[in-house]
Amino acid sequence: MKMIIAIIQSKDSNRLRRAFNDANIQMTQLSTTGGFLREGNATFLIGVKDDRVQDVLEIIKKNAKAREQYVTSQMHMDVEGGSAFPVNVQIGGATVFILPVDQFLKF
Amino acid sequence: MKMIIAIIQSKDSNRLRRAFNDANIQMTQLSTTGGFLREGNATFLIGVKDDRVQDVLEIIKKNAKAREQYVTSQMHMDVEGGSAFPVNVQIGGATVFILPVDQFLKF
Amino acid sequence: MKMIIAIIQSKDSNRLRRAFNDANIQMTQLSTTGGFLREGNATFLIGVKDDRVQDVLEIIKKNAKAREQYVTSQMHMDVEGGSAFPVNVQIGGATVFILPVDQFLKF
Ligand code: NI
Ligand code: NI
Ligand code: NI
Repeated sequence: MKMIIAIIQSKDSNRLRRAFNDANIQMTQLSTTGGFLREGNATFLIGVKDDRVQDVLEIIKKNAKAREQYVTSQMHMDVEGGSAFPVNVQIGGATVFILPVDQFLKF
Repeated sequence: MKMIIAIIQSKDSNRLRRAFNDANIQMTQLSTTGGFLREGNATFLIGVKDDRVQDVLEIIKKNAKAREQYVTSQMHMDVEGGSAFPVNVQIGGATVFILPVDQFLKF
Repeated sequence: MKMIIAIIQSKDSNRLRRAFNDANIQMTQLSTTGGFLREGNATFLIGVKDDRVQDVLEIIKKNAKAREQYVTSQMHMDVEGGSAFPVNVQIGGATVFILPVDQFLKF
């Protein structure tokens, strides 16, 4: 048994939750506070048997990994004209800790 | 020292919190988000010395274990009459992880 | 790699969060519920390499340790006069668990 703690962007949390659900992997999503540093993050606790750890990691990777996306800049005003143009930004990203579990019980 | 993570039904959380309090066991209740999968759950973090692990497990079992309860159905309308009747539903239930702790400190 | 779980008074949480930020230590602040026992607490999850554990502990100690503070009592009315006087109360305090981590990943 392992306890997997995954911290992801909250934009990816609905998608990740659905993916875990579809794979029958039980997890708990913890609320993070509205602190200025951490707004936009979500924390998942996932308890799994050793032989499913790799599945969980694949699901996190597939649904929450860091990737680039073109967005249209709203901020930049070019001296020549003023039209918006696309910029490449990084979104997503997952930080994952795998912790040992001494004992797992259900009552 | 062990870190016990207990995920229970939120209906049982006030009762469990009081039981821990009465047994002088310190715990922290984490908020879970209002996600569709997890509403109705509560997560407790409990740090205890090895020789009190069994006490904590007994308290969780006593206050939050899965059990059956007769409830009066509000939904069913019998073709013959329309009176409510009791149905047997499962409530409660605790998922418990015991994690090793390298070091415990108080400042 | 270690997972440090620190439970502190919420009065100290902004200060501690800023101190971690200034030291480039990543952490996640979890919400605790408004339960009667735990209002006023904040829980931090901090993942660090073994050689930074001591730094993290120093930062927690410096920003959240238990200390005494003189506050002016609003409650006491002396039979002779009725003027307020300072009382010494304990504030702050941190409970810290250091857990082993099997694996740390970033996606
Ligand atoms: Ni689904
Ligand atoms: Ni009590
Ligand atoms: Ni700063």
